[in-house]
Amino acid sequence: MSEGPVKFLLSERDIPTRWINLLGEIPGQPLPPLSPRTLEPAGPADLTPIFPMGLIEQEVSSQPEIEIPAPVLEAYRLWRPTPLYRAHRLERELGTPAHIYYKYEGVSPSGSHKPNTAVAQAYENARAGAKRLCTETGAGQWGSSLAFACSLFGLECEVFMVGSSYDQKPYRRSMMQTWGASVHRSPSTLTESGRAQQAHPTGSLGIAISEAVEVAASRDDTNYALGSVLNHVLLHQTVIGQEATLQMQLAGEQPDVVIGCVGGGSNFAGLAFPFMRAQLRGEAQTRFLAAEPSACPTLTRGEFRYDYGDTGGLTPLMAMYTLGHDFVPPPVHAGGLRYHGDAPMLCALVRAGLIEARAYRQNETFEAAVRFARSEGIIPAPEPAHAIRAVIEEAEAAREAGEQRVILFGLCGHGNFDLAAYDAYLAGELEDPEFSEQELSDALARLPEAPAIA
Amino acid sequence: MSEGPVKFLLSERDIPTRWINLLGEIPGQPLPPLSPRTLEPAGPADLTPIFPMGLIEQEVSSQPEIEIPAPVLEAYRLWRPTPLYRAHRLERELGTPAHIYYKYEGVSPSGSHKPNTAVAQAYENARAGAKRLCTETGAGQWGSSLAFACSLFGLECEVFMVGSSYDQKPYRRSMMQTWGASVHRSPSTLTESGRAQQAHPTGSLGIAISEAVEVAASRDDTNYALGSVLNHVLLHQTVIGQEATLQMQLAGEQPDVVIGCVGGGSNFAGLAFPFMRAQLRGEAQTRFLAAEPSACPTLTRGEFRYDYGDTGGLTPLMAMYTLGHDFVPPPVHAGGLRYHGDAPMLCALVRAGLIEARAYRQNETFEAAVRFARSEGIIPAPEPAHAIRAVIEEAEAAREAGEQRVILFGLCGHGNFDLAAYDAYLAGELEDPEFSEQELSDALARLPEAPAIA
Repeated sequence: MSEGPVKFLLSERDIPTRWINLLGEIPGQPLPPLSPRTLEPAGPADLTPIFPMGLIEQEVSSQPEIEIPAPVLEAYRLWRPTPLYRAHRLERELGTPAHIYYKYEGVSPSGSHKPNTAVAQAYENARAGAKRLCTETGAGQWGSSLAFACSLFGLECEVFMVGSSYDQKPYRRSMMQTWGASVHRSPSTLTESGRAQQAHPTGSLGIAISEAVEVAASRDDTNYALGSVLNHVLLHQTVIGQEATLQMQLAGEQPDVVIGCVGGGSNFAGLAFPFMRAQLRGEAQTRFLAAEPSACPTLTRGEFRYDYGDTGGLTPLMAMYTLGHDFVPPPVHAGGLRYHGDAPMLCALVRAGLIEARAYRQNETFEAAVRFARSEGIIPAPEPAHAIRAVIEEAEAAREAGEQRVILFGLCGHGNFDLAAYDAYLAGELEDPEFSEQELSDALARLPEAPAIA
Repeated sequence: MSEGPVKFLLSERDIPTRWINLLGEIPGQPLPPLSPRTLEPAGPADLTPIFPMGLIEQEVSSQPEIEIPAPVLEAYRLWRPTPLYRAHRLERELGTPAHIYYKYEGVSPSGSHKPNTAVAQAYENARAGAKRLCTETGAGQWGSSLAFACSLFGLECEVFMVGSSYDQKPYRRSMMQTWGASVHRSPSTLTESGRAQQAHPTGSLGIAISEAVEVAASRDDTNYALGSVLNHVLLHQTVIGQEATLQMQLAGEQPDVVIGCVGGGSNFAGLAFPFMRAQLRGEAQTRFLAAEPSACPTLTRGEFRYDYGDTGGLTPLMAMYTLGHDFVPPPVHAGGLRYHGDAPMLCALVRAGLIEARAYRQNETFEAAVRFARSEGIIPAPEPAHAIRAVIEEAEAAREAGEQRVILFGLCGHGNFDLAAYDAYLAGELEDPEFSEQELSDALARLPEAPAIA
């Protein structure tokens, strides 16, 4: 029974004091965001109506490391460092010679990795004198994390929640309200962007972003906060990979492959970027594997080009793999992965061949999640269930090849608020929506003209 | 911002390897359980139809320490050691000179302290060749923990869930099913005990216990498992207090008062007994404070006498504070505290004046819980909200007295499955049921004759 430690735990002294910034090291030519009005490169001034200067500086910085402010570190101590597990029981269940490790972010108050950036964003906004933050949320992980962070820094919080998740996860709404936030079902009738999308009652992240940006832009005391995609969000999440690096050293191993799910990309980047830096500098040889839903296959089926971050076209255009900013994915339970694009930094790494992407159907990810829950105990959120599916493929490939590969993946959140989806899966009633070629070409045909990318 | 550490973390090497057994040190004369048929002292033979011998031996042992079997320790490593927090933010919010610490058991897979005994019980039953465990659950914390434990040790699991909780917390049922258990709403029509109680559709722990015991007694391959009250259950929970003892040493402090909520008593005992041993041996001077609901005030309003553990009168009679075994408490959200009696070991300590008990109304516990969530981040289950209410009283008393008291309390679970109750509280719609004198005297009048207690 004793194959060595199950958990690799750090002390508070080991919480990273700096974030890792990969922006200056991304291969290929820089592709700056473009102003939605002029289609010219957007500068900090384009962002000041909705972001505080502290975050804009982080967004555009090419410093390799950025110091974490003391009040943010203080907030991190409420749940960090998070544990790294060795999945001995899953390895036995799979009969694989692979060593499987997972970094578990579900121990945070809201149950996912999202507070890592929420507290950093709430702090910078409070420091800049904002009174209120407005945001969107898909599965509710981000909205509840921002509600929690706002309660720590004395800010009001207003959340537009994607309709399909609002209906599937009523308790995520209660959680936000318990931390003092107000929550609207999106598309709402409170904004122009929402009123224009009443024909899509399930909503999408793109629509909810438009609503939140519109509110933030229209009020002087209100800023906007985004839970993924942007450079500064990916930056904040790198505490995950830095801790995992220390913990893998404690375990005496180096990962051969790093696996994460990708929606907007911040969970993946948070775990992978510290390892990616070693890779880019020639200090390690690691594979990187991004898992996404077949129902919203941005990295595997999207087009690499400039597109808006939101459905209404209010945000700057970013160079990314996109399905088209008005593409509305089927309402899969992995609400955090229902985004039409991906973080530009992550896309550049995929384009450079440094990250491999795979897409999975909803049912096969839940099959993997139940297998994980019954061996490791933790019930995963539907988003990291995609990563677990990829882990099982890798572990089985290692068994076939007779190789002792070391696999590290991000278990970015628990599934305590997703049990209705598990219910449906166990009853054999979970839908398994597939992506349609027609929808893709229609959405791409509606894309705005923007500078071509070589 | 830096008042010292927020968390005191241990490594896997610090997980206790022995349970602390207080049975031989309880003050007063021993009051053995009585057979429900003969009203004579019950021996191990009375328990063999529903419990494996390994647990019966633990139940009656007076050894001061009992070694934890290696496979149980192996399972503990999936979530233990759990963190001890210093509540700096709550202290600031209360403006108190008190130092407030909490031991957080919500990091376990099912989100509470219950797996500490669930894995120990599943292991002993699997070792004895049982094929299936049958149990009751109130709030669902115990049932989901046993479902989890059974999935680790290859046992089937069948759960009778108290009706009011079944309706309030559908996702607890889904969680049990995800770990492979089958779940029935109690009172059910599957058992004689359930059919006799159809007039009480909200159910109670006492009724659900009768149903589970009836099923276990009628099937050779099925044993019964209880989540609290019994000596061996309290024993298993002492890993909590042993870790907390080490962690308080790391913090360089001794608790002046130890606080926990009490339903059946295992959470309270788990934290308190290791400190109580030091107290009984004259090595410490600590106050102990038990918090219970006004709606089910066993320790503060019950009668100390022999009574059945279940509503149907199938279990041995135990000497305890009881409201009468057929008392059905109002459906407060702290389902884990809706039990008519209390652990005999705990009751003996209350009777000896070593533990003080206080009862709280539902709304004042939720007020305390929301205050805690908005300062410390973690949303507590309704059960430990009772402890938090008592902590706030103690911290405010310390402020009035100008004393720097050290308070340690058990945060035995998170409230992720209790958000409907938070919804009702925040909307001002939470009921605040009080206990009625008439109900108490009626229930006590229906009690069976049993030997008087001096």
